Amino acid sequence: MSETQMPTQRTRVVREPERGVYDREAAYHILDEGFICHVGFLVDGQPFVIPTSYGRKDANLYIHGSAASRMLRQMKEGVAVCVTVTLLDGLVIARSVFNHSMNYRSVVILGKAALVDDPEERLTALRVLSEHILPGRWDDARQPNERELKATSVLRVPIEEFSAKVRTGPPVDDAEDLVFPTWAGVLSLEMKAGEAICDPKLEPVREVPDYLRNYVRK
Amino acid sequence: MSETQMPTQRTRVVREPERGVYDREAAYHILDEGFICHVGFLVDGQPFVIPTSYGRKDANLYIHGSAASRMLRQMKEGVAVCVTVTLLDGLVIARSVFNHSMNYRSVVILGKAALVDDPEERLTALRVLSEHILPGRWDDARQPNERELKATSVLRVPIEEFSAKVRTGPPVDDAEDLVFPTWAGVLSLEMKAGEAICDPKLEPVREVPDYLRNYVRK
Repeated sequence: MSETQMPTQRTRVVREPERGVYDREAAYHILDEGFICHVGFLVDGQPFVIPTSYGRKDANLYIHGSAASRMLRQMKEGVAVCVTVTLLDGLVIARSVFNHSMNYRSVVILGKAALVDDPEERLTALRVLSEHILPGRWDDARQPNERELKATSVLRVPIEEFSAKVRTGPPVDDAEDLVFPTWAGVLSLEMKAGEAICDPKLEPVREVPDYLRNYVRK
Repeated sequence: MSETQMPTQRTRVVREPERGVYDREAAYHILDEGFICHVGFLVDGQPFVIPTSYGRKDANLYIHGSAASRMLRQMKEGVAVCVTVTLLDGLVIARSVFNHSMNYRSVVILGKAALVDDPEERLTALRVLSEHILPGRWDDARQPNERELKATSVLRVPIEEFSAKVRTGPPVDDAEDLVFPTWAGVLSLEMKAGEAICDPKLEPVREVPDYLRNYVRK
């Protein structure tokens, strides 16, 4: 694959350019920690933004869904899409209202989604998606049958034109505000797994598996 | 304001229509619990999806940013945008790979953003935004001055054409899968506040305020 020179004019971070990250490995790290993306696409001149899960294998992002969904019906035409993944790390509490901010890591991918036709790549993509969200689950669940595979569309978005944006660290206040009589710092935020709630129809012999007990996203 | 009949053809939930919610109060509840939205807009035929914070007052959503940002430069032209807010509540662990899902609540708003010119509405919007993310902070921080207000653009997106989509509850497996030998249920997920990390430049007399100590999003 020929590597697009990063950033392109479209992915260069305009605002706060010091937060721009164009390194592929750094972008992969963010993509691998998240599992919900927001996909932007156009229908009759109107942009739509739809949340969906995803997985990554090498330089491809995979999303899936029912062939009946508005998103997938549009995207399989090979139209331009934008896939954005955002991880929120903290509220940045400055002394001035103006300098409040957030610590976050985000990746924006511009590209064209393509429908995956090859049965082997489709199955691989579905496994990648599943293992991306919950490693260890695929082998522990009933495998997809022919009917289910037919009902599922898989789309591939090549990770070619992309940028990441990252903010870390404490607030940056103006020098004259440092004595303003208020607290300042960062309130960290994290997506945490809570309780594993049994399906009411679960047979009593089934125990919560380790990959759920110890679920963390990093 | 004349209320648009909900859903419109554009906001009707196509896939899994039983998850569609068109009730304004239900949508507000989701919008008020989140504080990061993903905004979709078009630049030269390419959709962009950018994460940003927001606030809500009555039937308006407000977003803000630097006048220098790509998003705000585009959006102030009054072009069509889509604002999506997604809250992730849990992983739905089914017995079959196919029936895995997520519990989530999302709102999609289609509309046109307008630049807020009126100084009073601008200041109100900024306060709403701040109090939306961190109630109690505005009065405890150094207020914006004229220069800062000039450097900040505020956009209003009317909440007129919208839909919400909600999934709750246990997995829904096919009857014949109920005996499949694996665990099934929901792993709940939650955005949690962690440590309040002092700015290294903080004067030692400043204590962590209560609105940070007890930060919850519901």
